[in-house]
Amino acid sequence: MHGALESESNLYALVEAFFASSFSTDNAIITEAVKRMLAAGGKRLRPRVTLLSAQACGGDAAEHLHLAAYMELIHVATLIHDDVVDNAKTRRGVNATAIDYGNRVSVLAGDYLFAWIFKNVTANYPHPVPNILSSTLADICDGEVLQLRALGNFDLGVNGYVEVARKKTASLFAASAQCGAIMGGGSSEEIAALHAFGELYGIAFQMNDDLLDMTADELTVGKPVGNDLTERKMTIPLILALERGDRNFRSTIERFYAGSENGAMIGSTIRAIDGQGGLEATRERIGEYVVRAKAALQPLREGVSKESLANLADALLV
Amino acid sequence: MHGALESESNLYALVEAFFASSFSTDNAIITEAVKRMLAAGGKRLRPRVTLLSAQACGGDAAEHLHLAAYMELIHVATLIHDDVVDNAKTRRGVNATAIDYGNRVSVLAGDYLFAWIFKNVTANYPHPVPNILSSTLADICDGEVLQLRALGNFDLGVNGYVEVARKKTASLFAASAQCGAIMGGGSSEEIAALHAFGELYGIAFQMNDDLLDMTADELTVGKPVGNDLTERKMTIPLILALERGDRNFRSTIERFYAGSENGAMIGSTIRAIDGQGGLEATRERIGEYVVRAKAALQPLREGVSKESLANLADALLV
Repeated sequence: MHGALESESNLYALVEAFFASSFSTDNAIITEAVKRMLAAGGKRLRPRVTLLSAQACGGDAAEHLHLAAYMELIHVATLIHDDVVDNAKTRRGVNATAIDYGNRVSVLAGDYLFAWIFKNVTANYPHPVPNILSSTLADICDGEVLQLRALGNFDLGVNGYVEVARKKTASLFAASAQCGAIMGGGSSEEIAALHAFGELYGIAFQMNDDLLDMTADELTVGKPVGNDLTERKMTIPLILALERGDRNFRSTIERFYAGSENGAMIGSTIRAIDGQGGLEATRERIGEYVVRAKAALQPLREGVSKESLANLADALLV
Repeated sequence: MHGALESESNLYALVEAFFASSFSTDNAIITEAVKRMLAAGGKRLRPRVTLLSAQACGGDAAEHLHLAAYMELIHVATLIHDDVVDNAKTRRGVNATAIDYGNRVSVLAGDYLFAWIFKNVTANYPHPVPNILSSTLADICDGEVLQLRALGNFDLGVNGYVEVARKKTASLFAASAQCGAIMGGGSSEEIAALHAFGELYGIAFQMNDDLLDMTADELTVGKPVGNDLTERKMTIPLILALERGDRNFRSTIERFYAGSENGAMIGSTIRAIDGQGGLEATRERIGEYVVRAKAALQPLREGVSKESLANLADALLV
């Protein structure tokens, strides 16, 4: 027996209610730190993908709230660790966990969350769900290390970039969709389709994140415009601009990345990337991945859940 | 068919050979960082407990080297994270991972190791092994947070201390013994006996570690004498001395813990703890846990593995 098919906004509300009322670990301090982080906001995209995927396969979203929550919590734990190593002061407009609780508790809270998630998943979910989640976390860390090593590497190229994005970002979206499909009772074809959707959506999501870093205002993205440039990250607009750009453009970027105090040059650097077509080419790439993500949904039965997943992908086309 | 029963020293050599030749992850930088940390030494107590437990139940140690290695690697990953949050410069006489690779790679390397271990364990080991390992990591983090919150808390008491030690230290020894027993084909009575041994041994191990911090020289323990006092930890010698000590002793310790620059007072503080019988009472407690740990081994068949486990416990009586 299936419950009512929930609309996207209802799913969001279900996830929020779950975090507000049902989330608790065995350690009071860590529970409090995580709840504070959750209360600061976030789009809850990963749990939404999980619940929509379960529904798309005929499952009942309300039965998979724990699973959906684990997807968000893996993401939250990685953010808590990121803020420690980045010495971040704020996250989503409130104090970073490391500011309120210190680095020790923050590192431990992330570790504890990972362990607590795996403990619950290994106790309550059948093979291969526990393996998918731990493999995903390994991918995320692997991707972050690869990204660190690629800082300032102008020869990374689109393929190298996609490899990093696939591991660092898309693997968790792919797992969110795949595990939702498995637990929602999907056929192997449906499970494979949703895994593919999650991966393609995740790559488009990361490309859009890179684009927003150069085009959105600070209030929208919650961090300074051009932050990725300051960190010498190899983002997709930069890579595509370097592909198109002449030697002159490359030297400009090289000088920027070699310097240490470039705050005043961020605006002109973004304009130079735009001038080489980097932003427009990024929008085209995102469009391609969105088309592929939606095409991956083809084997699924028609309905509100499939439509909502397609809508999530379309929302990246701005 | 069982292989030859390996002696303790052979087991140590087997574990070392495994780490030197067979250990590798999918990320080259992380593999290198972990190998460097492993090469710096360590007693490999956890894998030895795993292999001896497997043998004690009739298993073949050589078949369980991967499992044994995971126990050491969980320990290694927690140490890598500890060194980040403690800003440690050295570990086992060589540079801490955070010094050679930076905080970012070190936090990621620990996360990756946890994930990589769980990925392999969920793929290759039956229930409940994956659940035991993830529950253990949750316990370790929980115990470390409890310890942080108990810094300078003179009312922690022996029971509070044992609770922290059980989670932070003993749970991994208990899991090492329990999982070795499970995979070695132990009966439920043997598995329970070895779990109990690991837990009691682990508590005695932590008490001995506390004692060594006050009595061993820097070369032996690899950190400054009295380091726990400097960090305001509530160690068992201090707790037992406070139980026995008069108001005067308590004020001395309170003044020490309230101060910030107490390097010169460490020697006299340790002498004061000794004067109240804290060191002697700690040796007695360790003796009690060693007796209980060995008694827990009673259901196991007699043989070299059971003897070796008892010898590991006796080695704490120094």
